[in-house]
Amino acid sequence: MTTVIRIIGIDPGLRRTGWGVIDTIGNSLKFVASGTVTSDGDMDLASRLCQLHDGLAEVVHAYRPDEAAVEQTFVNKDAVATLKLGQARGVVMLVPARAGLPVAEYAPNAVKKSVIGVGHGEKQQIHMMLKILMPKVEFKGNDAADALAIAICHAHHRAGNRMRQALAG
Amino acid sequence: MTTVIRIIGIDPGLRRTGWGVIDTIGNSLKFVASGTVTSDGDMDLASRLCQLHDGLAEVVHAYRPDEAAVEQTFVNKDAVATLKLGQARGVVMLVPARAGLPVAEYAPNAVKKSVIGVGHGEKQQIHMMLKILMPKVEFKGNDAADALAIAICHAHHRAGNRMRQALAG
Repeated sequence: MTTVIRIIGIDPGLRRTGWGVIDTIGNSLKFVASGTVTSDGDMDLASRLCQLHDGLAEVVHAYRPDEAAVEQTFVNKDAVATLKLGQARGVVMLVPARAGLPVAEYAPNAVKKSVIGVGHGEKQQIHMMLKILMPKVEFKGNDAADALAIAICHAHHRAGNRMRQALAG
Repeated sequence: MTTVIRIIGIDPGLRRTGWGVIDTIGNSLKFVASGTVTSDGDMDLASRLCQLHDGLAEVVHAYRPDEAAVEQTFVNKDAVATLKLGQARGVVMLVPARAGLPVAEYAPNAVKKSVIGVGHGEKQQIHMMLKILMPKVEFKGNDAADALAIAICHAHHRAGNRMRQALAG
């Protein structure tokens, strides 16, 4: 029996949060949907966090994924930007967690390595590999593409974990 | 007619988020309740954010405040700590916003100025002033005391805003 596991990958950001949903069936990957949830920069922070929450909750409700994966935030020297991203990321992680999904985190270079084979690379390489890995893939913009890459990274890691568990058991 | 406005002040933190609820009746302040919502440091981040969310949502549901005020985060050079606080803060702001409350933000020195008259001071001074401003106040620990100070800061600012509006109108 082959189990279908549906994964949502999320690339958090206060202005734009990308999301991508894929199905893993055995060793194969199937594209389901992708998109971007945006918040209105003219509104206050609390309202923007609500927009992210409600938009992402709608996606989780519509596609009912089994597991979630979120990109680990790149912490840089710009503290104001780090704080902003942190606030968005808190809300973005909360949504699948409240829906009862396990939420895995992956570093950006782990995500790139899963998709293009190395820990660094151009956006275009990720886009190209997404199309090779899932010929029916559709995405608009980098945020949705990154979210799909995060979902694929999780699919690979969870397969590896299962194999290790099977070998140990 | 004197309107009672109930304010919740919140001091966000991933491990401990302080909260304090006060009533403003005309120019007087009345203590309602205070406490601390904690998250379990042994659990994963998504679960901890859920704990903060659920704990604070319970408080908002129990005390039904009209307005919320959150301390603006002090952005420091420790990017990892800033990110952690940002994630907690995002969730903490989301809770009252989703409940339909306006969420105001105040810088730490504005909060101190509202309570002790100057923009800097010791924790003990804040504790003492809380007892002078609201003789029936009860709080355990600095996080709850800070949250009450944030609520008082908002009470002062909203009174000033109303007066300005009345003078302009």
